[in-house]
Amino acid sequence: MHTVVRSATRELIIGSDQPFCIIGERINPTGRKKFQEELRAGDLSSVEIDVKAQIEGGAMMLDVNMGAPLVDEADLLAKAVKLVQSLTDVPLCIDSSVVEALEAGLGAYEGKALVNSITAEDDRMEAILPLVKKYGAAVVALPNDHDEIPDDPYKRLELVDKIVEVATKEYGIPLEDIVIDPLAMPIGADSTLVVKTLQTIRLIKEKYDLNTTLGASNVSFGMPDRHTINAVFLPMAIASGLTSAIMDSRTESIVRAVKGADLMAGNDEWGMNWIAAHRAREAAAGS
Amino acid sequence: MHTVVRSATRELIIGSDQPFCIIGERINPTGRKKFQEELRAGDLSSVEIDVKAQIEGGAMMLDVNMGAPLVDEADLLAKAVKLVQSLTDVPLCIDSSVVEALEAGLGAYEGKALVNSITAEDDRMEAILPLVKKYGAAVVALPNDHDEIPDDPYKRLELVDKIVEVATKEYGIPLEDIVIDPLAMPIGADSTLVVKTLQTIRLIKEKYDLNTTLGASNVSFGMPDRHTINAVFLPMAIASGLTSAIMDSRTESIVRAVKGADLMAGNDEWGMNWIAAHRAREAAAGS
Repeated sequence: MHTVVRSATRELIIGSDQPFCIIGERINPTGRKKFQEELRAGDLSSVEIDVKAQIEGGAMMLDVNMGAPLVDEADLLAKAVKLVQSLTDVPLCIDSSVVEALEAGLGAYEGKALVNSITAEDDRMEAILPLVKKYGAAVVALPNDHDEIPDDPYKRLELVDKIVEVATKEYGIPLEDIVIDPLAMPIGADSTLVVKTLQTIRLIKEKYDLNTTLGASNVSFGMPDRHTINAVFLPMAIASGLTSAIMDSRTESIVRAVKGADLMAGNDEWGMNWIAAHRAREAAAGS
Repeated sequence: MHTVVRSATRELIIGSDQPFCIIGERINPTGRKKFQEELRAGDLSSVEIDVKAQIEGGAMMLDVNMGAPLVDEADLLAKAVKLVQSLTDVPLCIDSSVVEALEAGLGAYEGKALVNSITAEDDRMEAILPLVKKYGAAVVALPNDHDEIPDDPYKRLELVDKIVEVATKEYGIPLEDIVIDPLAMPIGADSTLVVKTLQTIRLIKEKYDLNTTLGASNVSFGMPDRHTINAVFLPMAIASGLTSAIMDSRTESIVRAVKGADLMAGNDEWGMNWIAAHRAREAAAGS
């Protein structure tokens, strides 16, 4: 299954026969106090730095989230979308829990965006799916209901069934434009949760072959040596069928692990990308 | 499914609910010219170094192979087994393609060994399974026939069917004492081969829940940055169901990736091993 997203000038295909889609997570004020203050002052200068660092690190798409306390999120998200599109031609993931902000972001966006996100809750689907349809976007959908995340992968799959049914039949969203976020929880909270996430990815792949994404850094929250955990989790998720992640694209070891997983998954023919990256590092180290 | 192996004093359980079983690959003259010369001179002093480095690196079991040109492999393997058992109490994997060497190694071994290996070929099974039964060992079995390795995972599974049938019914080997090596081929030879190995692991797990092992370093053969490939491949294989590997236990990044995969797989409750290893590194760095 191919999910196609676009900027004004560039197309990106997400799919299990494609290199893993690295979506940069950084343009998001959650947990970034200084960035929140800047946003409250209408200062978007950090966004420029974040765009550059993430693209250089290997991001193929960028998530843009402006959800901070005491900001006009809709206004800010529209401005950030325009700014980011003036700086890079990679497609964007427009990320908000506020319907008005999603609409403002979509209105400002040139191309076919990924909207992040809906849940299986009726009111969220009713509010957001018409926007997804209107703007011809793709959408990230989380299999949780009434703010409850079922532990059982089969229960999560039932919520995927509901999302697919409603999005395709009631709103005419093409199946390939639904990207499921199977919910990655911190391993520190419960040692069994990552296994359930991996199983959910496999179930979704087997039943629908839908594309999947998740907030990958969340898994290592609260644990020491987070980078290694992230660099181990992503290949395991890719082996289970994950096709994209909203992730740290600025940490070389994590991006390299994803590129290694591309090689293992048969999505780097003759290892050409792997070998080219190795040579580039050698050249950089030599100069 | 639990495969239990033992030294004279120590028991090790291999299984999907256990920490991944790291089998040190190093005591093997293949590709080690100097070690081959030493062995021809009857000098086993390198073995001592290899035991120490592998155990310190995290090996939970050691593979012992003495297959070098112009040596009395049976005599050497018996001596090496005794020497290794005098140096460490981890269980051993007795590794040879020569039946007489396997018998000599088993005769010298104290405990319940893992025999490496049989194939699905009738003559190999006829020659080696009676030894496995006689010594009450467990056995590694490769799903290849007449020196041919089928590409198709379902064909490999058919060969597993044959091995299981013959080993359990004709020789009375308990199912749990059969460990399948699903054959890990170099990714550089064919970009699609690792996917087939991962699929074979999943098929074996789903049909039999048998334990699996493989020569993990083989995957990166001929490629640059082999350590990263190995550190990416193993978590992917573990996510697919792999429960042990004959691997490089002397490279910290690879062992750490496996420990990360244990954490992800729910086999490191509360992350206690992960956190303890982090603290030990911090203490070592501080001193």
